[in-house]
Amino acid sequence: MKRIKLVVAYDGTCYNGWQIQPGQRTIEGELNQALSDLLGEDVHVIGASRTDSGVHALCNVAVFDTETRIPGEKISYALNQRLPEDIRIQKSEECSADFHPRHCESRKTYEYRIYRAEFSMPVKRLYSHFTYVPMNAELMREGAAYLVGEHDFKSFCSVAAQVESTVRTITDIQVLTEGDEIVIRVTGTGFLYNMVRIIAGTLMEVGRGSYPPSKVLEMLEAKDRQVAGPTAPACGLMLVKYEFLE
Amino acid sequence: MKRIKLVVAYDGTCYNGWQIQPGQRTIEGELNQALSDLLGEDVHVIGASRTDSGVHALCNVAVFDTETRIPGEKISYALNQRLPEDIRIQKSEECSADFHPRHCESRKTYEYRIYRAEFSMPVKRLYSHFTYVPMNAELMREGAAYLVGEHDFKSFCSVAAQVESTVRTITDIQVLTEGDEIVIRVTGTGFLYNMVRIIAGTLMEVGRGSYPPSKVLEMLEAKDRQVAGPTAPACGLMLVKYEFLE
Repeated sequence: MKRIKLVVAYDGTCYNGWQIQPGQRTIEGELNQALSDLLGEDVHVIGASRTDSGVHALCNVAVFDTETRIPGEKISYALNQRLPEDIRIQKSEECSADFHPRHCESRKTYEYRIYRAEFSMPVKRLYSHFTYVPMNAELMREGAAYLVGEHDFKSFCSVAAQVESTVRTITDIQVLTEGDEIVIRVTGTGFLYNMVRIIAGTLMEVGRGSYPPSKVLEMLEAKDRQVAGPTAPACGLMLVKYEFLE
Repeated sequence: MKRIKLVVAYDGTCYNGWQIQPGQRTIEGELNQALSDLLGEDVHVIGASRTDSGVHALCNVAVFDTETRIPGEKISYALNQRLPEDIRIQKSEECSADFHPRHCESRKTYEYRIYRAEFSMPVKRLYSHFTYVPMNAELMREGAAYLVGEHDFKSFCSVAAQVESTVRTITDIQVLTEGDEIVIRVTGTGFLYNMVRIIAGTLMEVGRGSYPPSKVLEMLEAKDRQVAGPTAPACGLMLVKYEFLE
């Protein structure tokens, strides 16, 4: 028995998120099916980041155990032939048998992409959130600065989440402008349910002038989901970097 | 009666190209249908660039004549509500009654995008051509330089084309690298059928070392489609700029 680590990229447009659900198309479900067919075993992957419906990833991580004699680094090639074209393994390798991607220290970076123009642009529509509302990126940058560090992010977490603690650490937030796009790039050691989308939704309200950047500090201190901005749409969100720290 | 000019953006993935064909989904067909429904007239647009199946555009141009009293610049808003989300009017305005987008001097820029990596990347798959073959952009740049200027591009034109002359002018070609992508950016006053895709296919052969950059000059001189490289896949091609010179 050996444990294999996969780096998984996907276009989340046509999936009901990562986590397997009966009767739904999910990334985890597709991986389990393709791996079970390939290896002739009943395979269940463990995912690092259980991304929501419609969210994209360049580099999510999954592990699974197998008896196969196929070398770890060759599994990517064989597996990609069995996966739909909107899921692609970027790397496969054998890892330590006790490596669990959710029980080990890591640092993830998400990008939330906003396309700001009078009309939407078809070739951007699947990977960025369109708005015709003018946005001031400098105000968004000011608001974002309050979120860096260790904080109780209870206001930036969907009520559905049931976790022991809502304290998390954001190590960096950047608000970048690329032509007509604004990219919110958030790096942290852990994220609550919908946290990046609520941060994006809140910073967009700051960017359009609904409230001043300093309101973000008040929101943090309120520890109440009702006071923060809306959850921004899933299509703009992408997991772009995943580092394991041990 | 007035003539309206539209700037049209689209994701060509789900279309059989621009030109209307019975029983096929085309950009022209969708525009005619949405305009006829909106205006209550039988509308037929004239397109500037009749892009192929699967090719994308940020800014194709179309004109049509109408009796409507809706101001030209308002048509974009009303029309976008009737179009599918992979077609979006970027601008509408009244133009001169004798403006014909194919019978007037213009300069177009196309980009051909190549994603070079070991495995394809799902979120890039619709808008770039994937190859795992290493590509030397510097060799591609050397080969491209032979194509700038006025030349007989007969070797770079699909045999299906029936045109009086195969002489065209390329004003600029750049081969840019953006991370793992190579972008071939071609500007010219006119293009033959499949010309940019054959140029891209040929430069990719140069980039992978199949023949030296100087072979491109021999291909031009041969005036024979058989000697140039393959027609690169449509998904990597996008019309990115359109200027009318008069």
